Amino acid sequence: MGFARKEYEFLSEIGLSSRNLGCYVDGTWKANGPVVTSVNPANNQAIAEVVEGSIEDYEEGMRACSEAAKIWMQVPAPKRGEIVRQIGDALRTKLQELGRLVSLEMGKILPEGIGEVQEIIDMCDFSVGLSRQLNGSVIPSERPNHAMLEMWNPLGIVGVITAFNFPCAVLGWNACIALVCGNCVVWKGAPTTPLITIAMTRLVAGVLEKNNLPPAIFTSFCGGADIGQAVAKDTRIPLVSFTGSSKVGLKVQQIVNQRFGKCLLELSGNNAIIVMDDANIQLAVRSVMFAAVGTAGQRCTTCRRLLLHESIYQRVLDQLLDVYKQVKIGDPLEKGTLLGPLHTSESRKNFEKGIEIIKSQGGKIITGGSLIESEGNFVQPTIVEISPNADVVKEELFAPVLYVMKFQTLQEAIEINNSVPQGLSSSIFTRQPGVIFKWIGPQGSDCGIVNVNIPTNGAEIGGAFGGEKATGGGREAGSDSWKQYMRRSTCTINYGNELPLAQGINFG
Amino acid sequence: MGFARKEYEFLSEIGLSSRNLGCYVDGTWKANGPVVTSVNPANNQAIAEVVEGSIEDYEEGMRACSEAAKIWMQVPAPKRGEIVRQIGDALRTKLQELGRLVSLEMGKILPEGIGEVQEIIDMCDFSVGLSRQLNGSVIPSERPNHAMLEMWNPLGIVGVITAFNFPCAVLGWNACIALVCGNCVVWKGAPTTPLITIAMTRLVAGVLEKNNLPPAIFTSFCGGADIGQAVAKDTRIPLVSFTGSSKVGLKVQQIVNQRFGKCLLELSGNNAIIVMDDANIQLAVRSVMFAAVGTAGQRCTTCRRLLLHESIYQRVLDQLLDVYKQVKIGDPLEKGTLLGPLHTSESRKNFEKGIEIIKSQGGKIITGGSLIESEGNFVQPTIVEISPNADVVKEELFAPVLYVMKFQTLQEAIEINNSVPQGLSSSIFTRQPGVIFKWIGPQGSDCGIVNVNIPTNGAEIGGAFGGEKATGGGREAGSDSWKQYMRRSTCTINYGNELPLAQGINFG
Amino acid sequence: MGFARKEYEFLSEIGLSSRNLGCYVDGTWKANGPVVTSVNPANNQAIAEVVEGSIEDYEEGMRACSEAAKIWMQVPAPKRGEIVRQIGDALRTKLQELGRLVSLEMGKILPEGIGEVQEIIDMCDFSVGLSRQLNGSVIPSERPNHAMLEMWNPLGIVGVITAFNFPCAVLGWNACIALVCGNCVVWKGAPTTPLITIAMTRLVAGVLEKNNLPPAIFTSFCGGADIGQAVAKDTRIPLVSFTGSSKVGLKVQQIVNQRFGKCLLELSGNNAIIVMDDANIQLAVRSVMFAAVGTAGQRCTTCRRLLLHESIYQRVLDQLLDVYKQVKIGDPLEKGTLLGPLHTSESRKNFEKGIEIIKSQGGKIITGGSLIESEGNFVQPTIVEISPNADVVKEELFAPVLYVMKFQTLQEAIEINNSVPQGLSSSIFTRQPGVIFKWIGPQGSDCGIVNVNIPTNGAEIGGAFGGEKATGGGREAGSDSWKQYMRRSTCTINYGNELPLAQGINFG
Amino acid sequence: MGFARKEYEFLSEIGLSSRNLGCYVDGTWKANGPVVTSVNPANNQAIAEVVEGSIEDYEEGMRACSEAAKIWMQVPAPKRGEIVRQIGDALRTKLQELGRLVSLEMGKILPEGIGEVQEIIDMCDFSVGLSRQLNGSVIPSERPNHAMLEMWNPLGIVGVITAFNFPCAVLGWNACIALVCGNCVVWKGAPTTPLITIAMTRLVAGVLEKNNLPPAIFTSFCGGADIGQAVAKDTRIPLVSFTGSSKVGLKVQQIVNQRFGKCLLELSGNNAIIVMDDANIQLAVRSVMFAAVGTAGQRCTTCRRLLLHESIYQRVLDQLLDVYKQVKIGDPLEKGTLLGPLHTSESRKNFEKGIEIIKSQGGKIITGGSLIESEGNFVQPTIVEISPNADVVKEELFAPVLYVMKFQTLQEAIEINNSVPQGLSSSIFTRQPGVIFKWIGPQGSDCGIVNVNIPTNGAEIGGAFGGEKATGGGREAGSDSWKQYMRRSTCTINYGNELPLAQGINFG
Repeated sequence: MGFARKEYEFLSEIGLSSRNLGCYVDGTWKANGPVVTSVNPANNQAIAEVVEGSIEDYEEGMRACSEAAKIWMQVPAPKRGEIVRQIGDALRTKLQELGRLVSLEMGKILPEGIGEVQEIIDMCDFSVGLSRQLNGSVIPSERPNHAMLEMWNPLGIVGVITAFNFPCAVLGWNACIALVCGNCVVWKGAPTTPLITIAMTRLVAGVLEKNNLPPAIFTSFCGGADIGQAVAKDTRIPLVSFTGSSKVGLKVQQIVNQRFGKCLLELSGNNAIIVMDDANIQLAVRSVMFAAVGTAGQRCTTCRRLLLHESIYQRVLDQLLDVYKQVKIGDPLEKGTLLGPLHTSESRKNFEKGIEIIKSQGGKIITGGSLIESEGNFVQPTIVEISPNADVVKEELFAPVLYVMKFQTLQEAIEINNSVPQGLSSSIFTRQPGVIFKWIGPQGSDCGIVNVNIPTNGAEIGGAFGGEKATGGGREAGSDSWKQYMRRSTCTINYGNELPLAQGINFG
Repeated sequence: MGFARKEYEFLSEIGLSSRNLGCYVDGTWKANGPVVTSVNPANNQAIAEVVEGSIEDYEEGMRACSEAAKIWMQVPAPKRGEIVRQIGDALRTKLQELGRLVSLEMGKILPEGIGEVQEIIDMCDFSVGLSRQLNGSVIPSERPNHAMLEMWNPLGIVGVITAFNFPCAVLGWNACIALVCGNCVVWKGAPTTPLITIAMTRLVAGVLEKNNLPPAIFTSFCGGADIGQAVAKDTRIPLVSFTGSSKVGLKVQQIVNQRFGKCLLELSGNNAIIVMDDANIQLAVRSVMFAAVGTAGQRCTTCRRLLLHESIYQRVLDQLLDVYKQVKIGDPLEKGTLLGPLHTSESRKNFEKGIEIIKSQGGKIITGGSLIESEGNFVQPTIVEISPNADVVKEELFAPVLYVMKFQTLQEAIEINNSVPQGLSSSIFTRQPGVIFKWIGPQGSDCGIVNVNIPTNGAEIGGAFGGEKATGGGREAGSDSWKQYMRRSTCTINYGNELPLAQGINFG
Repeated sequence: MGFARKEYEFLSEIGLSSRNLGCYVDGTWKANGPVVTSVNPANNQAIAEVVEGSIEDYEEGMRACSEAAKIWMQVPAPKRGEIVRQIGDALRTKLQELGRLVSLEMGKILPEGIGEVQEIIDMCDFSVGLSRQLNGSVIPSERPNHAMLEMWNPLGIVGVITAFNFPCAVLGWNACIALVCGNCVVWKGAPTTPLITIAMTRLVAGVLEKNNLPPAIFTSFCGGADIGQAVAKDTRIPLVSFTGSSKVGLKVQQIVNQRFGKCLLELSGNNAIIVMDDANIQLAVRSVMFAAVGTAGQRCTTCRRLLLHESIYQRVLDQLLDVYKQVKIGDPLEKGTLLGPLHTSESRKNFEKGIEIIKSQGGKIITGGSLIESEGNFVQPTIVEISPNADVVKEELFAPVLYVMKFQTLQEAIEINNSVPQGLSSSIFTRQPGVIFKWIGPQGSDCGIVNVNIPTNGAEIGGAFGGEKATGGGREAGSDSWKQYMRRSTCTINYGNELPLAQGINFG
Repeated sequence: MGFARKEYEFLSEIGLSSRNLGCYVDGTWKANGPVVTSVNPANNQAIAEVVEGSIEDYEEGMRACSEAAKIWMQVPAPKRGEIVRQIGDALRTKLQELGRLVSLEMGKILPEGIGEVQEIIDMCDFSVGLSRQLNGSVIPSERPNHAMLEMWNPLGIVGVITAFNFPCAVLGWNACIALVCGNCVVWKGAPTTPLITIAMTRLVAGVLEKNNLPPAIFTSFCGGADIGQAVAKDTRIPLVSFTGSSKVGLKVQQIVNQRFGKCLLELSGNNAIIVMDDANIQLAVRSVMFAAVGTAGQRCTTCRRLLLHESIYQRVLDQLLDVYKQVKIGDPLEKGTLLGPLHTSESRKNFEKGIEIIKSQGGKIITGGSLIESEGNFVQPTIVEISPNADVVKEELFAPVLYVMKFQTLQEAIEINNSVPQGLSSSIFTRQPGVIFKWIGPQGSDCGIVNVNIPTNGAEIGGAFGGEKATGGGREAGSDSWKQYMRRSTCTINYGNELPLAQGINFG
């Protein structure tokens, strides 16, 4: 079926049409749930329709997935790596189209849309290497003729529930690792980005098919809270990776824990940039700009709080106001645009409400603060002077709103940084080694991401991504994040004929 | 104050008297809560009295501990290791007395009591080495003039809530690692083993004092559920390590998660030994004996289910009945005793109730099954023939009761092994490499401990200890368990003057 | 220029012609040394001519390479990984042609020729992952305000001298790792396989060009001993990776050490397979066949010694003679051929001489032992009964000659296995865990490769490849082999204002 | 037998007398070689006599050691760790006496003598932890039903040849690790420090005896070049760890390589400190002082070259001259002494010759440069202005002579740092992150030790110690140095019934 607008026609190259079935169940596209419309946030016009999954679809998918799990976990890890390599290559061939779709459906600017897909490709490459390095250990035993092995085995099935702001990269972080680790993946994408969910799934499905593997290794659903809840409750899913708000994440965690499942949580951030008096101001200003305005303030790593040393407070603020003035707002697919729309009209309303609360709590709007009249969900990039102790500062307003504060000492700055419930990302601008090492040390930032002279956002996949406290404690992407996707066994093998006991105990 | 019985006088050598204050708060022994009596399970007579802590004591302790945390986390890790080394040496000088106390107050036989203390000493030695190996990583960055570091920093304070069955070893597992990692320790011992809590604390306190360190680095409380709940709720304690039942553990976890703290859970086990047709039967029988009768069936790793291949079923059972007959039951401090009392008279009642339920669900008592008339909490070591599907088999009856079952194929045996909610320990007896590797592989045992030709119990400290599913997922002791006691930061340091972005994104 | 024979025309698809310049120097193909003819070992007819490099060519190449090194080591490792990924993809597009060339010029059968190229592709994939995991460490310092980092930096230039039997895979093992580690590669291929050297180089060069990188990052020479010696002596090359005989390797090592350079040596093997009385005989026979006859006995991992337990001696020997009879000998490019020619007519003469020596030392030829009359360098697959103590058994005869010996106990078999100067590969066939763990333990095989129930040859790239004693001690391919291609620095950074000394020393 | 001087009487507390047998052979003290006199470098008077070992003593020792090796490598690693722990405790009880002996016989000041013994104690503690962490790996295999293990096994015997300047610490670095790794140790101490060799050996021997272990696990010889050569040539010693000059080290390496043994070399250093214009000058001056004057310039990590930025050249030099004036020279056992004698009268002559060469090559003596008239081997602490290109600057003069040079740019300073044949230690003083990371990065210092704001000497045991180029490339103490003391096997175990080949090859 053709698309309503010519500029959507590229979508047919990644397997989409004007009406799409939203579930990939045992190798078949089907869907028996409600029909939803995917909307372009830049103009609130329909892009295409998607039929979401019903609970019956889910159940059918999970049955097939459970069967597929038995086969997939037996495939040697390096062979699984080869599949993930092919997924990376499939993404390479459609990088532009997928990036464009991310920009179109989510609303982020095109370079960020393409960057998001590139991140999955990077994850694929990384995971291929990992597929020969999911190493256990041979540990010296204190007992003669005993071997102690630490083994890492697949969990079976990993459930991945993703959010609209990174509609495919977060799937990529999880799925690449989960797959090489020997797990099947069950994906529920965000309800407002179903086209990306479908397009991504099509690419993965194509690779599985080509390799004659059970298609249910990758099972995916467009759907809402009911499907999410089904995943959380499902005892067949030992690990649920959830990205979203702290509030919802906590609920998911309680449901999953209740059945003794595990969670990998990537929840809210409330990320600060500290600018010290010795900082490279130009670098700082560019970084704040990217961190606060990029993705229209809808990254979990968006900079929401700017802590300026009193001695350079005004200078930084002035320069920042200067660059804010030059921010090109508009269609995210257009070249040169830096600020696209918020993702939904509801987000736009939340922004409006947020500004009211800010004002009521003593916040002073220095620039922005208003909605932009248009068909789309555009708002002004906003800077607010406010006390670090205001209640609103402790919360995550998912919009391009930056709170600016003043501090006198490094210790004070660190205390403010650490004073919010969230603990995702943080950054300091300084040129003093003593400050740098204090900042990344035991009494420095309490976040999972602790940067120096770069923004709070824009992580590389080689490091572990995630945060502490209300951010949920999970780690995705690089480092040893893969261990979360496997179960560890401590195995002691007695290959002799005696029975010596640990700690030299004599029994009988 | 003198002890009621002469045989308790050795307790004065480890700082105990007939009445003891139960809280070590900022370097002072105090306690304002209820008075409890510590009882010898072998005769139910009083050993000594202990005053438990009140919530006010707790609060005072935590205030001091929070202050001490600021200092302790700044002490270089190898210096912290030196303190833990001294703790190990202090334990060495009192090994016999402490082991004796464990046997006296908990009820396990003396070799096990001494073995438990030895395990803490081993942990100390291990942790000293670790204090120079709490390594972060330097990860290659994709951006020029950027360094990526993965840093591990202390959490601050670790709360440790331990159970009666390992009244000090579990503290040792946690505290040794927590301390070298730079954390203060807040310990709540089991309500029924307060003397051990006090004696252990005295030894640790002595070392801190000798080194002029803030005594509140180690803060300890005798107390009950109210203190436990205070720990769970306390936002000053980022990590709560809890050992106990799955039911209580789940509650603790929900309270801790609610405040976005972390849990390290060591909960119930329901551990099976599988004996294949090619097994070394003699080795198997000795192992089952140690695993099922040792510590009167009150280890979390106690073997509760014995899965016998049909071809050797009767032979193993006969031999087992033979050795059961020879088990010497009696005073755990007496030489030659293999089976001491249950820990409390309530445990004894639970045993009685358990036997009733077993019978009502079709279980056939092959040996034992009765209480033993005496002053103490003695019960008969019991073997039951029962279906693997009986409800009672899915639960952990904390007593020397062994369920015996028959199987035909390895796959069937593994399915039965994995069919319970718990996932702590498991063991197979076989001499076939194919069976061994299947057992420790993706479709083998789903437990955290997966043994071959040794019992389910008796772990070495070099490996990670803990289990999956209802056992809670935590890992203690060796391997990289230490990472749970630290917070990880991914730090990217830009030491150049440019601002390249990850994934090659261009912004502005 | 056209090729003499039609069946060589496929060579033009990988950049070869009937006359080729043999050096890739700063992005240009040139050569001013002697002209050599590449010969098909199956018929000793010319394939094509190659002009080898002169010392002046070498010098010019090294000057450019030294300049390129300054740039390449600054490229972030993940970007270097991307280049290696593209090399892998380039190889994929020419897998069949390259494999065919390996078979044609070296003489191994086609599946092995293709397998060899596949191994480089696998190495590329592995190295891409590695490019984000060349991790240093952050080690806890005993001094306050000090950070201790273990850094891994590139060496600069790695020289790779390879042998005819793996004319490109060994380059692949070295170059993939060396390149992601930030080193330029200088390659001297074997004098008798210049076409493979050129074809491989063309593919790599194409990728460098496409990415606008200095072509001298990969510098390659066809040439003989003079070029090899120049590499060994060259102080600009901190690491020389040499594959070849123990005798030559030792010389290379002494020259390199004299200038305080490092060597990575892959020298002779003399590999045994032990068959225990409980072995799966069928598996053992198939394995011995592949290990002894494969690559016409010209692998460094070829099985040269077969140790049979006396109880199954005759049975295994009989089955082996049976399968030897069925070995199809002939053109390696022909389907079904299992045994191709030896690589050169000199190898054929060495075989002849070897058989004479064997006989003179009491060896009894059970099958084979003769040359095969033909245009090519064919010899019969040979089995010899001989004492393990015969001198000839201690040496590596590079031909399909298998020495068979009898043993009574495991210990005796291990002693024989370890009784030769070489220590590359070894294998045992057994089904007893006790034997397996003894074999891989402190008193088992002293080789770098210690297999169970598989042949001595056919290593996976995920493990480290290499051997002990006269085999040279180097490790290539997987595990942490990459560390040999980097230099390690222990860096201690004082970011405070005090000067505490290690070991608590007071000075002044 | 009594000592000549009263102040030597403390030596009897560590098992020494006025005449001592110098070999510990299979648990017996014996010696049939020449008699040498140990001399106090502060006054050149005899301390005591020692009978050195003959080649027959050596042979007897090695026979026993070879037998002991078979037993020791079978002892589980954690039990070996317990032995090393006890060695540490034995050293603790004699720390003062041993430190005093080091000071007396070697000539370093007392705090350094005690520090040296403390370093062995630290190594013991570290090694105990290591004894449960000598981990191999379980690597994912690409073949179904195959397990790939990387195993680390003991080498058997490690030969340790140490130098006079660290007469016991270097033994400690090697022996602690070698022992927990399962190796016996054969030690040849420096010919001029035999008393330390004997005293250290006595302590170790006492622990072995107490534990009923074969005493030949630790075999030690006082002796000269003939014993050293015997070690180098001995095929029973797979690894020779040698500390000494580059010239001798190179010879040892060639002898050991000839028999395909391995070397661990710690050879000459020629270490520079760079002081940037932004440095903390006071910190730098104190550091240079400790690094250039400490141990009378006889550390391999002694600072021999001081590179000063032109802008602070005179200021640093002036301050340095100031502190040099205050250096107290005299008896190293006396409190407050900072500079003791050179170790031998020959060293004193070498100093004299060195000064002549310096002058002849244009060096300008700024302070010092003369011998000090006395009974002992005292010389003046010396500072020389000289060109970085002078030949003498490329060599290691083992005396307190510091070459001072001027530079203009960081790059120039790094080039000078890297322009010598040696590559042990180096240090920069700066407060700029960009400079720090360049210094420790691919184009920074080429040394094994790369410090920032601390001296070149005074390493912590947690890091790897050693250097590149003419320093020999070995690494001792922490990090993964232990791997050099073990042999690595890549083990692939087929536990199935099929024979799939790597790289998907089909054979037959």
